[in-house]
Amino acid sequence: MHQDSLTSQESQSPDAHFLGIRQRSLDLIEGFSAEDLQIQSMPDASPGKWHLAHTTWFFDHFILRSHQHNYRPFDNRFDYLFNSYYDAVGSRHARPERGLLSRPSLQQVLDYRNQVDLAITELLEKHGDNSALQTLVVTGLHHEMQHQELMLTDLKHALSRNIFALPEHKASARNGATIESRFIRYYESITRIGANDEGFSYDCEKPKHRVFLEPYELRNTLITNREWLQFMADEGYQNPTWWLSDGWFYCQKAQWRAPLYWREHQDGWEEMTFEGYQPVVLDAPVCHISYYEADAFCRWAGWRLPTEYEWEHSVRSAGKSHGHFAEQTPWHPQPPTSETEGLCQAQGTVWEWTSSAFSPYPGFQPLQGALGEYNGKFMANQFVLKGGSCATPAEQMRFSYRNFFHPYQRWQFSGVRPARNIDL
Amino acid sequence: MHQDSLTSQESQSPDAHFLGIRQRSLDLIEGFSAEDLQIQSMPDASPGKWHLAHTTWFFDHFILRSHQHNYRPFDNRFDYLFNSYYDAVGSRHARPERGLLSRPSLQQVLDYRNQVDLAITELLEKHGDNSALQTLVVTGLHHEMQHQELMLTDLKHALSRNIFALPEHKASARNGATIESRFIRYYESITRIGANDEGFSYDCEKPKHRVFLEPYELRNTLITNREWLQFMADEGYQNPTWWLSDGWFYCQKAQWRAPLYWREHQDGWEEMTFEGYQPVVLDAPVCHISYYEADAFCRWAGWRLPTEYEWEHSVRSAGKSHGHFAEQTPWHPQPPTSETEGLCQAQGTVWEWTSSAFSPYPGFQPLQGALGEYNGKFMANQFVLKGGSCATPAEQMRFSYRNFFHPYQRWQFSGVRPARNIDL
Amino acid sequence: MHQDSLTSQESQSPDAHFLGIRQRSLDLIEGFSAEDLQIQSMPDASPGKWHLAHTTWFFDHFILRSHQHNYRPFDNRFDYLFNSYYDAVGSRHARPERGLLSRPSLQQVLDYRNQVDLAITELLEKHGDNSALQTLVVTGLHHEMQHQELMLTDLKHALSRNIFALPEHKASARNGATIESRFIRYYESITRIGANDEGFSYDCEKPKHRVFLEPYELRNTLITNREWLQFMADEGYQNPTWWLSDGWFYCQKAQWRAPLYWREHQDGWEEMTFEGYQPVVLDAPVCHISYYEADAFCRWAGWRLPTEYEWEHSVRSAGKSHGHFAEQTPWHPQPPTSETEGLCQAQGTVWEWTSSAFSPYPGFQPLQGALGEYNGKFMANQFVLKGGSCATPAEQMRFSYRNFFHPYQRWQFSGVRPARNIDL
Amino acid sequence: MHQDSLTSQESQSPDAHFLGIRQRSLDLIEGFSAEDLQIQSMPDASPGKWHLAHTTWFFDHFILRSHQHNYRPFDNRFDYLFNSYYDAVGSRHARPERGLLSRPSLQQVLDYRNQVDLAITELLEKHGDNSALQTLVVTGLHHEMQHQELMLTDLKHALSRNIFALPEHKASARNGATIESRFIRYYESITRIGANDEGFSYDCEKPKHRVFLEPYELRNTLITNREWLQFMADEGYQNPTWWLSDGWFYCQKAQWRAPLYWREHQDGWEEMTFEGYQPVVLDAPVCHISYYEADAFCRWAGWRLPTEYEWEHSVRSAGKSHGHFAEQTPWHPQPPTSETEGLCQAQGTVWEWTSSAFSPYPGFQPLQGALGEYNGKFMANQFVLKGGSCATPAEQMRFSYRNFFHPYQRWQFSGVRPARNIDL
Repeated sequence: MHQDSLTSQESQSPDAHFLGIRQRSLDLIEGFSAEDLQIQSMPDASPGKWHLAHTTWFFDHFILRSHQHNYRPFDNRFDYLFNSYYDAVGSRHARPERGLLSRPSLQQVLDYRNQVDLAITELLEKHGDNSALQTLVVTGLHHEMQHQELMLTDLKHALSRNIFALPEHKASARNGATIESRFIRYYESITRIGANDEGFSYDCEKPKHRVFLEPYELRNTLITNREWLQFMADEGYQNPTWWLSDGWFYCQKAQWRAPLYWREHQDGWEEMTFEGYQPVVLDAPVCHISYYEADAFCRWAGWRLPTEYEWEHSVRSAGKSHGHFAEQTPWHPQPPTSETEGLCQAQGTVWEWTSSAFSPYPGFQPLQGALGEYNGKFMANQFVLKGGSCATPAEQMRFSYRNFFHPYQRWQFSGVRPARNIDL
Repeated sequence: MHQDSLTSQESQSPDAHFLGIRQRSLDLIEGFSAEDLQIQSMPDASPGKWHLAHTTWFFDHFILRSHQHNYRPFDNRFDYLFNSYYDAVGSRHARPERGLLSRPSLQQVLDYRNQVDLAITELLEKHGDNSALQTLVVTGLHHEMQHQELMLTDLKHALSRNIFALPEHKASARNGATIESRFIRYYESITRIGANDEGFSYDCEKPKHRVFLEPYELRNTLITNREWLQFMADEGYQNPTWWLSDGWFYCQKAQWRAPLYWREHQDGWEEMTFEGYQPVVLDAPVCHISYYEADAFCRWAGWRLPTEYEWEHSVRSAGKSHGHFAEQTPWHPQPPTSETEGLCQAQGTVWEWTSSAFSPYPGFQPLQGALGEYNGKFMANQFVLKGGSCATPAEQMRFSYRNFFHPYQRWQFSGVRPARNIDL
Repeated sequence: MHQDSLTSQESQSPDAHFLGIRQRSLDLIEGFSAEDLQIQSMPDASPGKWHLAHTTWFFDHFILRSHQHNYRPFDNRFDYLFNSYYDAVGSRHARPERGLLSRPSLQQVLDYRNQVDLAITELLEKHGDNSALQTLVVTGLHHEMQHQELMLTDLKHALSRNIFALPEHKASARNGATIESRFIRYYESITRIGANDEGFSYDCEKPKHRVFLEPYELRNTLITNREWLQFMADEGYQNPTWWLSDGWFYCQKAQWRAPLYWREHQDGWEEMTFEGYQPVVLDAPVCHISYYEADAFCRWAGWRLPTEYEWEHSVRSAGKSHGHFAEQTPWHPQPPTSETEGLCQAQGTVWEWTSSAFSPYPGFQPLQGALGEYNGKFMANQFVLKGGSCATPAEQMRFSYRNFFHPYQRWQFSGVRPARNIDL
Repeated sequence: MHQDSLTSQESQSPDAHFLGIRQRSLDLIEGFSAEDLQIQSMPDASPGKWHLAHTTWFFDHFILRSHQHNYRPFDNRFDYLFNSYYDAVGSRHARPERGLLSRPSLQQVLDYRNQVDLAITELLEKHGDNSALQTLVVTGLHHEMQHQELMLTDLKHALSRNIFALPEHKASARNGATIESRFIRYYESITRIGANDEGFSYDCEKPKHRVFLEPYELRNTLITNREWLQFMADEGYQNPTWWLSDGWFYCQKAQWRAPLYWREHQDGWEEMTFEGYQPVVLDAPVCHISYYEADAFCRWAGWRLPTEYEWEHSVRSAGKSHGHFAEQTPWHPQPPTSETEGLCQAQGTVWEWTSSAFSPYPGFQPLQGALGEYNGKFMANQFVLKGGSCATPAEQMRFSYRNFFHPYQRWQFSGVRPARNIDL
């Protein structure tokens, strides 16, 4: 078993596991119409329908075409339409125009899913002991899980552009956290970072290697909305002192003055959630903030973001620390209720920005072929996030998982856990 | 009866007339899914669903709110969503984001149409003799007809961005025109241009006024695809000599090398139609060209575009000259088969670019209130087109009708009828 | 003698006339450094040095190369650098990068001017009776005069981007106009518009042709700063009611709230002039406004802009009406002091926007060859201005002169004389 | 004495040292006119005149205003014009408009330099033993040296936009390197990275801290033009396989097909140098390449870029390795002629891209006040370059020096020294 994974599927047969994860994608779109799943609200996002088709294409293209004898694809043109970014696969539909694909229809995409699912389960029944095949299927399922999260974040963004997307009920406040915040000290060490070859992991998590850590402190809890409101009240969004130069430029251009999805109401700040607009819960972790905001907040507070190494070292030491994952609704971060080795909500709840640029580990080898484009070609201008969020499938998460986004992006469920230096 | 109108509805009762035109909007979307009607393929275009809702809002906002006692709108938020550009009405949804409105659904919009149609017919039954009301209803119907054409042109554009939008069958060529092209001479005159107060017309068509015309010649037939291919073969798209400065800039930026919807195939040029890709029919009028292209073609040929005054003078003299309107499919221009006073296809078939900028007529008075924004505020940077197209409802057309678009736009069914100077 | 021209040069020999106008270009740059003449403050403007070189290139390229035996150009590369927009001449330096040409230096450009002036005067001495040559030289001089004005407007714009461009002295106010404003009535007529073949004129002013005018009224005086301040006080810049749709978009994007070069000061509005910042003179004509602003002002006031035909008809009837031209400083519009046939400052002072798009006259024939690009290729998206300004050389002006700019441009000395309709 | 610095100035008095470095800025602009020093050829670059003024402002603002009793600034407005990016200092002239500042003139800027130099030398004579003052002066001199290099790179770029910037003579090829390229192995280690408190260094070089290095190999020589031409011949610029995703986007958008300043000639590739266009010298290090190109080259070759830690560890072990600095002309990289501990041209010659994003070192503390903006606010989206170039003043360089640029930028003298992994 994987040393890192937070969940286990031993009891499931490979095809039950396969079908279970595939089904979850369909569960997530319950309540959304074909029209909801058609729209692309910004170039960074993709339509729900596109996610459903693209994840299917992954099995279609990378597995069935090479492993299925006499394979007849559902539609040859899907190779053009539903390739995301694999240059080695050939040309493809322009990303910002995914929302224009009214054809194929949602129904055709669901039929496509069915046909591919059937073919994959047949293949697994016949060749389930083929380890190359197993690896590809598991990769496809992890890929599917990544897109389950992206589909949620993209749908949330799409709904935010519709004025009557959601009920406007006011949930009763869920404040009342009892976990006091404090910094936990970690002494200098040589730590081992990344994944080894047991269990599934992406190429960018490998090889496991040694990193020297100077002493540091990491906060037990995430930054809360209460703290964020203090930053705002102190004109955090108006004062260049706290901001990176690129961040200040972006903040002014995009006219940021609060996290994404917040709006000011006569009774105070509200935020859009999948359950409609809600008053901001003061003790809940702040969410939907960019790297630039996370970094500015930390400077203002006299702290800093942790490196990905510090984060992994601390959280791995603490052991499993299940926060709130996508299996559990609401898809919205909640105040913490318990600690694991002192750390609260270190997995799930919100992705945690680190100060580490997404770079190759020493000895990094991308996968051969088109799948080598999965991670390696994004190693510039992006920062690593750790730990997963309340929109992440739990099974996907592990200590070595490296998520990455551009520093201006904030439509993911991203938050902050600060670190600080120690003068010894 | 209107002196100009090409069709008549005397035999119909007002509410039958109303329901007939409203129904035609629904007839046009047959075969299109909710997803097809959701997408907005460029900022100039709107989703089909939006057109269906906006034309309904026009009756809702401008008639029912003021004439219906105790009127309860279908949804108050529609005033924000489905106002197109009336600043006097208040703020509105951003035009380039119309494609993001997955809510309300197509079904809700159809329900909206039903409720409004019912309310209007009730109103017409009760107050059918109220002439202010009648005028508003007729205006709403002309507005609806304009949007019927826009809906077709926008759907065509949307389909063009989908790789499997349409069947790819090849129609048998429909060449074989027997009308020989020639120029018809018109001597100097003082002509009366525009609409008088009988029948329906827009404010920008008024007042009827006098214009002095120097002698000119106008061609009996439209420019054909055959002639356009000669222009292309002579490097018309590569030679700045023929182009307006702004046009050449645009041509290079957009990399034009043929009309919109054309593509080169091993057997020659094809064009996308509502019936799929078809070989270009040599004797059919060229279509989907911008003002810049129309103007460049004329310079290359040694001709020029007519003014809107020359056009109206000639066509009015010829009398009714029914070409091919939207009531008749295919929605695609066909070769000419007959002449009226020498002029072929002077109404319907394709909109004809004129060299006249869209400007106020002497004595122009915009309507009072929000409807004064209908035409008057667009009187800069646009050129007048005359005559209607194969996507225009016949009832909407009259000699004085002034359509207007920016010189770079080419997704309308627009073509060219050249004029030339006479040295006397 | 030219029927239209406002000045006469009969007494001068052709080469004295040539050298006189060429010298005036140098007079205008007195007080500006090589660095001032280097900069290009926006893509619409050109550096002073570039103007000095381009006007010289016009004589070099269009005259000396074809008329001078064994001509050795000053530098062959200048054909690439100093061609403005003649596609027929070949490729050229990118317009927005004119400000990057630090080489050749100002001194080299002045040497270039000297060499070309010498060659032209020699040519005129030898072949002064060659009428084709004469025509080209006169064309070159009119071209030079156009650029003298552009050089002033471009230098003014360049200075406006420098915080210590100019002395900040406050001139004493020069208010006190005694001319009362009123509208002058003109009855319907067939008028003759444009230039005939006597004297110099551009191709776009020809042929002289007949236009029918419905009755109208034209104001004797230009709109004043006092009136403009009333428009501003009534939230003219904040209210879409008065604006063309494209104009309102531009107004918001560019955040206009006053004419170009105005700034608000604790004591009221000031404007930048060649003599430094000055309090706005209430009785002086408003200046540096775009077509969009001019049009919005007129709608607000219940008036409209005149067509170019109405303008030419009225001013031609009034006869010569010398306003204030560039020979007289300050280069800034002054309050009116006298009337000619009722019209004040109808020539010089400020260019007057008309509602006429810049279009070909009936029978228009562009010049043969590269000079055919001089005017004809700009006949889209621009509006005609009439009458000249306080930065225009007087000799260049005539009733038929058609200046043209895009409706958003406002760095020219442009103002408004309103017209209005008559209900008879 | 600083443990790291490559040169020493012990023998000089502080004011002689000050004046010497200040004078070097003036030496560098010999042969450039006021017009050359006026232009800004892209937003990333600044005019030469601006560099001369800004470096002077640094002494004016940060030293004279606080240390000089009764100090009367040369011109108070310079604080607005010549502040580069210090938000704490106040508002400032927009960066992309530096090229529009024709005023003050070059002569006024030279006068400004004189006055400030005089004031600083007076201050040094009176208070030379004030260590805070000394630190500020030394900081100002290092700042001046940085701008000496930027002024050269910006002038080179400006000249490249002028078609007759430079003589076009062909230098005789200077090939013939005798140093064979090979990889040098470094075993795992804990190394100490960064600067300690002796001597001058920037805040971002501190604190000295420990880093664990897995084993790696670093090449003795820089990548040559010969190798770069092989990459080009193998369609390196046309094949997305080798490129980062952002890099491929940029490569296509900017249409890169060779290093900056290269052009194809009938006899082969040439590059623009300060001595005119020269045939590319095959054995010389490639120069003027972006991070994206450096990274793509390494992937193509099967190598990778070193981290900044690997680079510093190797070069520090080798000890001083003077390459070619700005004191020596031509300002252009030359083939290597000698090795230091195996490494050739590890300092000077070309800046070497590392794979390390510019991030804070553990324990990083920005300086207090405005100078804290010097480095810390750029710690996103930029990569570290090490070693200096042939345009860098030698005195400025040290092992711990971290230069940083965006990955698309290539107008610096930047090249590549590859590393590779070891499978042990």
